[in-house]
Amino acid sequence: MTSDVRRAEASSRRDFLRKGTAAAITLPAALSVVGACSESKAAAPPKAAAAPAAPPTPRQRADAMDAMHEKGVKSFPARTTGQGNQLLTPRLEKGVKVYDLTAEEVQWEVEPGRKVKAWAYNGQVPGPQIRVREGDRVRVNLTNKLPESTAIHFHGLELPNDQDGVPFITQPPIKPEESYTYDFTVPNAGSHMYHSHHNAAVQVGLGLLGAFIVEPRRAVAAQRADVDYVMVLNDGSHGYTLNGKGFPATEPIVCTQGQTVRVRFMNEGMMIHPMHLHGMHMTVIAKDGWDQPAPWKCDTLNIAPGERWDVLVKATNPGTWAFHCHILPHAESEHGMFGMVTALVVKPAVV
Amino acid sequence: MTSDVRRAEASSRRDFLRKGTAAAITLPAALSVVGACSESKAAAPPKAAAAPAAPPTPRQRADAMDAMHEKGVKSFPARTTGQGNQLLTPRLEKGVKVYDLTAEEVQWEVEPGRKVKAWAYNGQVPGPQIRVREGDRVRVNLTNKLPESTAIHFHGLELPNDQDGVPFITQPPIKPEESYTYDFTVPNAGSHMYHSHHNAAVQVGLGLLGAFIVEPRRAVAAQRADVDYVMVLNDGSHGYTLNGKGFPATEPIVCTQGQTVRVRFMNEGMMIHPMHLHGMHMTVIAKDGWDQPAPWKCDTLNIAPGERWDVLVKATNPGTWAFHCHILPHAESEHGMFGMVTALVVKPAVV
Amino acid sequence: MTSDVRRAEASSRRDFLRKGTAAAITLPAALSVVGACSESKAAAPPKAAAAPAAPPTPRQRADAMDAMHEKGVKSFPARTTGQGNQLLTPRLEKGVKVYDLTAEEVQWEVEPGRKVKAWAYNGQVPGPQIRVREGDRVRVNLTNKLPESTAIHFHGLELPNDQDGVPFITQPPIKPEESYTYDFTVPNAGSHMYHSHHNAAVQVGLGLLGAFIVEPRRAVAAQRADVDYVMVLNDGSHGYTLNGKGFPATEPIVCTQGQTVRVRFMNEGMMIHPMHLHGMHMTVIAKDGWDQPAPWKCDTLNIAPGERWDVLVKATNPGTWAFHCHILPHAESEHGMFGMVTALVVKPAVV
Repeated sequence: MTSDVRRAEASSRRDFLRKGTAAAITLPAALSVVGACSESKAAAPPKAAAAPAAPPTPRQRADAMDAMHEKGVKSFPARTTGQGNQLLTPRLEKGVKVYDLTAEEVQWEVEPGRKVKAWAYNGQVPGPQIRVREGDRVRVNLTNKLPESTAIHFHGLELPNDQDGVPFITQPPIKPEESYTYDFTVPNAGSHMYHSHHNAAVQVGLGLLGAFIVEPRRAVAAQRADVDYVMVLNDGSHGYTLNGKGFPATEPIVCTQGQTVRVRFMNEGMMIHPMHLHGMHMTVIAKDGWDQPAPWKCDTLNIAPGERWDVLVKATNPGTWAFHCHILPHAESEHGMFGMVTALVVKPAVV
Repeated sequence: MTSDVRRAEASSRRDFLRKGTAAAITLPAALSVVGACSESKAAAPPKAAAAPAAPPTPRQRADAMDAMHEKGVKSFPARTTGQGNQLLTPRLEKGVKVYDLTAEEVQWEVEPGRKVKAWAYNGQVPGPQIRVREGDRVRVNLTNKLPESTAIHFHGLELPNDQDGVPFITQPPIKPEESYTYDFTVPNAGSHMYHSHHNAAVQVGLGLLGAFIVEPRRAVAAQRADVDYVMVLNDGSHGYTLNGKGFPATEPIVCTQGQTVRVRFMNEGMMIHPMHLHGMHMTVIAKDGWDQPAPWKCDTLNIAPGERWDVLVKATNPGTWAFHCHILPHAESEHGMFGMVTALVVKPAVV
Repeated sequence: MTSDVRRAEASSRRDFLRKGTAAAITLPAALSVVGACSESKAAAPPKAAAAPAAPPTPRQRADAMDAMHEKGVKSFPARTTGQGNQLLTPRLEKGVKVYDLTAEEVQWEVEPGRKVKAWAYNGQVPGPQIRVREGDRVRVNLTNKLPESTAIHFHGLELPNDQDGVPFITQPPIKPEESYTYDFTVPNAGSHMYHSHHNAAVQVGLGLLGAFIVEPRRAVAAQRADVDYVMVLNDGSHGYTLNGKGFPATEPIVCTQGQTVRVRFMNEGMMIHPMHLHGMHMTVIAKDGWDQPAPWKCDTLNIAPGERWDVLVKATNPGTWAFHCHILPHAESEHGMFGMVTALVVKPAVV
């Protein structure tokens, strides 16, 4: 997919999800197609009680809880400032794709109104998505505006040792206010990552991470997809996030019935996250960028820190489908769904 | 396996394990066949010490610890009130299999004498086992007797969106004292689950979960088994449990040498549980209800929250074999084995 | 590989890594070949500040942090007292390979200067490596010098029930100051383990564990390797360790470009550890000693408690490559790398 295609896709997604809404954020339109709930009025918070001293009835307590849950769902996808994982278009210099990254401290809005300290590449969490092709010549210029030294490890790329990004083993640390250039030919295809490898438990936790996607030299027919979606999982100091946001600020994945969606899961956190898709199964095609010898099916895929798993979903089943970590405390509290929850929205095919 | 077959199996199991014992609970009879320990007398708690002030010797301390361990093992399988995962026979209404579930608060005895608050379907933890065939028409009536709203998600079934059980996305929450009906044709075979998808970190942790087994339209020869056992793992507010009970109240799996045992692992908890079988390996045949493209062998299988794994064990090795989570603090303390421990009992074939 | 071959290998490793250094511990020589850092002077701790009261500048703070990181890396592999996982040569008695093990309390140096209480077999953590062949007759004599009873479970071996090592199920506990003999014919090949199965959460955590490698009756061509390395992961009371040591006291794996390295991962801890190799991928060939039906590739392999995974690495890429758990808090702190970190050193092939 070219960057233009992807931008168009993103834009159509947003249009689809917010169609005709400005002040009032509504449920994804797909819901009305496939059987939306009809109790939004009943779920309002309890009205003024009959007598001031009467404790709430179980039903009133249930209504109050449900109202919080409904509010979260109905605000999805909620607007926040900042979007991570945006495709970064390189400069071309004599056939070399040049990417400029600046690591710096920013405020990052994880959910509406919750802003956290982040260390980000180009102000994004995850950092901008780098997408190249096997065999490309690539240069990555990193400018360090952080108060600490840093370095970039290209996780999954089989680079020459001096490009591996491990301070004191393969390079000196990149000091505050200094710059450093990585320069290499992209050796192997797949879903990879780039992230700090210096004081990394802190630096990656704060946001110094991004997707590094390498398309194969020749397209592989079995991997053809209409939508190609990167999902970075994290659980550091920003809480439980998908692509840097917590529900309801996470981004839905939108497709049309009959399409094939490729999801590239990447875990940049410290915990496993078994991601569960409702309504359809996933076919696992690659691990850490390497084809699985025989694709296999599941609906819950356990993704450990540092792992990448690529799956295909054949979008046969129209509707809005919950897609979340199945460690339930990463996805739901008594106040409603939060954290590692998004949705796969399958629009009915137009006949 | 029909429900009658399974009831007979369960009854024969209990007979086998408790043969001729009423007040005195003894070791499984299989042990005497294969080399039981001969030190039960030596392992008694230390007798009155020589002088009141003398501290216990290391040997006395060891004996005291061992006595606790022995007591736990010798009481296995310990009687408790309540059994989860019992096969639920449906009512047949015009070709539809109708299941009535009531969600309500009960006291649940996890181990002898340890009763906990549970939210249960039909008073069982796990809820009653639903076992149908691919293509069956099914109706599930849920009556909510809980103080909170709830909803059922059929985890793994590829249902129409309006049957998916996610409040405010696919249906309204089911309020206290209200009922709701799910109605669908069973779309895909395999080892699936049903559980709450509302305030689920709490509700599933308290017990609102059960197995939903779908037998394939045509039996698959490679999956033929003499014993078909569902093992639901949990680690919520009830502690570490297998089918709602902690050792020594867990249920042994009993078979005869030469038989094939199918175990359907299901993780309804918040943690991974690598289940380790002693004495024989497991052949992994399915993930989340989908056949693995090539079965593979192991003796320790890591099961993450939301996952189901089906394995076959060829019971070649007679004896009583420990079968437990290999995260040791989930299975043993200084007071002996507890939690996620059971046994596979392979009775010698009669020649 | 015979024990002589392995001893020679170990000796050449040490020579290689410490070539010509006695007092001054330097970076592995391989580094100078592949692009070593040139800033070791700049990374010294900040000198006396200009004025006593001036707070350190960001650069000074970064330099101070980097100096700690550098110190750790430069001291790798750091000398400590005691080495675990040493090959144990059996006595031969009438065709039986006899291994004598003594379980006792020792002080164990995990990293330079950090000594912990350990319960060890023959004074080693992990215990001595037992390496036999399928079909061998083996006798293991265990003498218990601990203040508690104990027993050995041969994890992964499909032994007769009375050799399975589970107190009160298959044998009596082995009391303090007593001995016990296990006696069996080795039934199945693969990467297995032996460890305590009594009060095991404590006893294994303290070090009562070791590798039990069974070579197949006939060598399997697809598993041929030039270096055969056992890596035992642990996270108990000794902290995060690889073969009983934390970085920088961990042992590098050394090979020559073009060679094949087999790594046998074994998790004796309580947590998952997704092990990530830089610079090259791993081909997964076996799980718990059983061949995978089709080998598959990855660079990050999630290893759960009780699991063993065998991988092959084709050492194509010269250099010193970080090899670590990708749960970053198991591998790096603000003071530098620690715990579950080692390196794969690929020496350039001599032409």
